[in-house]
Amino acid sequence: MKRSIGARTVMYPTPVMVVGTYDVDGKPNAMVAAWGGICCSVPPCISVSLRKATYTYECLMERKEFTISIPSKNYVEEADYLGLASGRDTDKFKDTHLTPERAEHVNAPFVKEFPVSIECRVIGIHELGLHTQFIGEILDVKVEDDCLIDGTPDTDKIGPFLYSPGNSSYFATGEFLMKAFTCGKKFMRK
Amino acid sequence: MKRSIGARTVMYPTPVMVVGTYDVDGKPNAMVAAWGGICCSVPPCISVSLRKATYTYECLMERKEFTISIPSKNYVEEADYLGLASGRDTDKFKDTHLTPERAEHVNAPFVKEFPVSIECRVIGIHELGLHTQFIGEILDVKVEDDCLIDGTPDTDKIGPFLYSPGNSSYFATGEFLMKAFTCGKKFMRK
Repeated sequence: MKRSIGARTVMYPTPVMVVGTYDVDGKPNAMVAAWGGICCSVPPCISVSLRKATYTYECLMERKEFTISIPSKNYVEEADYLGLASGRDTDKFKDTHLTPERAEHVNAPFVKEFPVSIECRVIGIHELGLHTQFIGEILDVKVEDDCLIDGTPDTDKIGPFLYSPGNSSYFATGEFLMKAFTCGKKFMRK
Repeated sequence: MKRSIGARTVMYPTPVMVVGTYDVDGKPNAMVAAWGGICCSVPPCISVSLRKATYTYECLMERKEFTISIPSKNYVEEADYLGLASGRDTDKFKDTHLTPERAEHVNAPFVKEFPVSIECRVIGIHELGLHTQFIGEILDVKVEDDCLIDGTPDTDKIGPFLYSPGNSSYFATGEFLMKAFTCGKKFMRK
């Protein structure tokens, strides 16, 4: 039996996306966001929603370019900190000893230590309420060599983790279950 | 060292969201989608991107109301099938022996067997390219009794799984790592 828990932001899983921008003075900044993900295949696009109060919102409105770095589970504490402090008050890269590296295709920094970085240019901005949704066209994806198998990113090697909104917790990615677009074929009518 | 793999739809994790709609004749339909997630806290909103070719797109443009059901990992094959077949050709609920149940606040069905269902009304439609992004305001969330602890959804009990775009695979949610908004405090300057 299901029970109503009201109108709440519940979703499992949500991603842990680290948004990299330069501020107006060129200082690298990074914040963590969980409200977003892939939103179009052609052109490849990613969405990320930010509160207007964040420094990244300000940087993004100015620059219109950003990166998404995906942290591995070795960096849970660093990623969490990127959501606790504001780039207005401190240099979060210095605080966490993470390294900002300039992206190739956009004027934004990614986190060198994280295994995946996605370079994006803003092509849409949607005011939704407390959050503003930015649509970024993905211009390039870069992955650590040792996280690729035959040129394809390998989930286990990347070791991404996820955020659970209900109990505000981070969880690891678990075991492989089944292949997509394949395992459901058993229900196909003959 | 990072290597470019081009402009691709890479994100870890992406959710497995089952979108429930009624078609114009009132037949319940469900499809699986991974391009979406929470996109605003106030009002609580969820986004889901669909290709125009899908039957759900057609139903959604007609009805402007939908549900998102989150399957547990016991239903990987059923969920996968919901992305393989089209509601234009078959009744996917019958094929999978899943049960459509009418939502309380919207004119759309959710999947009775799945532990979480989210009732949504479309408040925005964004044409992005191959995909159209629907923004749904969350009107209510319903969770199976035995997946709640003190009224809060419990990730382990829900047992959600995730989709990995790179290698088209489903993975379980793994072990608890750390508490969010807490574990990063060690980097705070004194």
